[in-house]
Amino acid sequence: MATVEELKLRVRELENELIKCKQKQNAMEDAHNQALNRPKIDKMSAEVVDSNPYSRLMALKRMGIVEDYEKIRTFSVAVVGVGGVGSVTAEMLTRCGIGKLMLFDYDKVELANMNRLFFQPHQAGLSKVEAAEHTLRNINPDVAFETHNYNITTLENFTHFMDRISRGGLEDGMPVDLVLSCVDNFEARMAINTACNELGQIWMESGVSENAVSGHIQLIVPGETACFACAPPLVVAANIDEKTLKREGVCAASLPTTMGVVAGLLVQNVLKYLLRFGTVSYYLGYNAMQDFFPAMTMKANPQCNDRHCRRQQEEYKKKEATQPKVEVVQEEEEVVHEDNEWGIQLVSEVSDSELQAATGARPDLPEGITVAYTIPAQDAAAGDTVEETEQSLEDLMAQMRKL
Amino acid sequence: MATVEELKLRVRELENELIKCKQKQNAMEDAHNQALNRPKIDKMSAEVVDSNPYSRLMALKRMGIVEDYEKIRTFSVAVVGVGGVGSVTAEMLTRCGIGKLMLFDYDKVELANMNRLFFQPHQAGLSKVEAAEHTLRNINPDVAFETHNYNITTLENFTHFMDRISRGGLEDGMPVDLVLSCVDNFEARMAINTACNELGQIWMESGVSENAVSGHIQLIVPGETACFACAPPLVVAANIDEKTLKREGVCAASLPTTMGVVAGLLVQNVLKYLLRFGTVSYYLGYNAMQDFFPAMTMKANPQCNDRHCRRQQEEYKKKEATQPKVEVVQEEEEVVHEDNEWGIQLVSEVSDSELQAATGARPDLPEGITVAYTIPAQDAAAGDTVEETEQSLEDLMAQMRKL
Repeated sequence: MATVEELKLRVRELENELIKCKQKQNAMEDAHNQALNRPKIDKMSAEVVDSNPYSRLMALKRMGIVEDYEKIRTFSVAVVGVGGVGSVTAEMLTRCGIGKLMLFDYDKVELANMNRLFFQPHQAGLSKVEAAEHTLRNINPDVAFETHNYNITTLENFTHFMDRISRGGLEDGMPVDLVLSCVDNFEARMAINTACNELGQIWMESGVSENAVSGHIQLIVPGETACFACAPPLVVAANIDEKTLKREGVCAASLPTTMGVVAGLLVQNVLKYLLRFGTVSYYLGYNAMQDFFPAMTMKANPQCNDRHCRRQQEEYKKKEATQPKVEVVQEEEEVVHEDNEWGIQLVSEVSDSELQAATGARPDLPEGITVAYTIPAQDAAAGDTVEETEQSLEDLMAQMRKL
Repeated sequence: MATVEELKLRVRELENELIKCKQKQNAMEDAHNQALNRPKIDKMSAEVVDSNPYSRLMALKRMGIVEDYEKIRTFSVAVVGVGGVGSVTAEMLTRCGIGKLMLFDYDKVELANMNRLFFQPHQAGLSKVEAAEHTLRNINPDVAFETHNYNITTLENFTHFMDRISRGGLEDGMPVDLVLSCVDNFEARMAINTACNELGQIWMESGVSENAVSGHIQLIVPGETACFACAPPLVVAANIDEKTLKREGVCAASLPTTMGVVAGLLVQNVLKYLLRFGTVSYYLGYNAMQDFFPAMTMKANPQCNDRHCRRQQEEYKKKEATQPKVEVVQEEEEVVHEDNEWGIQLVSEVSDSELQAATGARPDLPEGITVAYTIPAQDAAAGDTVEETEQSLEDLMAQMRKL
């Protein structure tokens, strides 16, 4: 039987231990909270102090590059696909202080993604949009985030996706300013294309090849430039659905370098488009083996199989005929860079033997640009292998028509 | 006076509270530890499973791009400057599974750095090398890290820097395989140049312009290609020491896009150089306004003011005369890309009026390439302004000779 003195001693011991435990807990919580937050900033300032996260961006004004950098806060951008390119794209836009980011992905973070920037090992198992939002909000709490953890290609989700990009802008009920495609398969690209054609939504495409050493970005203005159904999407090498590859126990190669460069070129194009500086690229390729960067534009195809694309083309023609020339219209009519002062020319990029790997008819493409992205075979469930993907262009076009 | 019963009750309460506190603390520590670690991996595997962080890199082998990807683990790279370009460079190399990374920087993380990738707000106040090592080790514990929190340009630190890059390779006592310059000022670039000339150490330069919309990377092989003292460093626009700018209450502009692209091009060049694939670029520029990418090479200058550069040139000549032609030697003798199958040509990038901003004599540079980086005036302490930096090339060269 304990004495009162013994019990009193024990109480003191326990009280002290509890104080220490709580102190440590508070310290851990403080560290955790500190890690999570910087205070929100109401108005972007150009003040040059170490504590201002926007000083280097606002300096673009003083440097004569951007007329009104603060305008970045009025824009909303949807990023579809938060993988190797999409996650870095979202991070760059977040650090630039974009008004609102809408993220779509249905994948989970895996350790197998650690060879690209952005996600960290402790996030393995989390949904990509959830993990990304947590990191991005931490980096810049001034950005508004909206995330959707679903596959946009199912009928129900597609309807919701259309609704969100057409009414989920910064001002409720208004469309987003730009949709960015950072997906890794044909189906999702086609879904984005279909939605943007119907809505007349300007968007940008991006992609990297399955061998990890080339990529591209592309601006698509419905009715003006070629849409995804007007011509097969272009990239310097074939790209294959990751899911198809996984079934075969193989995977596409990827590099943080190529994906970082493509994301950088994409977001640079976004900034130039939204903030109106420099020349916005319609198509810009990146061949890492040779450090070669082809540029081009393609007009919309009047025989496009997407009726909304044809409708947009009609509307564009009418607008062009009745309105005074608009900036964007002028640019579209020219082959990009043809008359620029730098004398950039499109030169051969892919060898003839590579082009001949596709044995069918070829569309009228500039030399050096080849057709990319495998269109899933009709019996896609049977599991395509890498070898089976070298279909002729004719086959590809025929299949695309059936879609 | 408390009764025995009351005291016993108090002991039970405290014991319960303490158990709860410790449980919570353990949970927090578990979460913390989990966040910090993935287990080390002894041998890189190409197995396609979600838990393999190297599957997408090892796939480069199967894709026919890289012969032996695992060799990446045998290389060590020093990164000088862990800012907007250097931090992303270090992250890319870490995710690629480089053997060893040596980081040099003396700056602290600030909220003003949050417009570039990598650092996060909760790291503000930490030294850049310390914060970077923590994040990078977390991302890939297989990489060996060595960090130095000092300015390499002071005499004592410079000696230590020389020692570490010449003897701090993966195998102790051996040099690193490559030094990467990711610094933001002339002095530090010159220090790296001096060290690499003396040691015959191959290195790569990188830079972004103060207006944030152009950048470059450059491979420097002492004795073969032009060093930093052979000709003023080249970039598409002038770059100014951040410290100088800060004194005036202004700062250089920067963008996560441009810095991400430059880091991506730099590390891609590093991978191509170390793993022997594709064509290594000697000089690659990035003009974001026009999406233009000039390429070129420059031979070493026999009248270079750096005696170690002249010695390296002599040694290179001897080696060239006596040895059977080595791969690298052949490449060096040609103007890069002159005979490549892609037909890349160097074309005009900067307008004549921009070139004429430098009123003195000009070196024999290809059209479109202009001289960059301000050399601090002799009375640097007086505080240079942006306006004062448009010195003539003659002045720049004269000042450089005095250094």
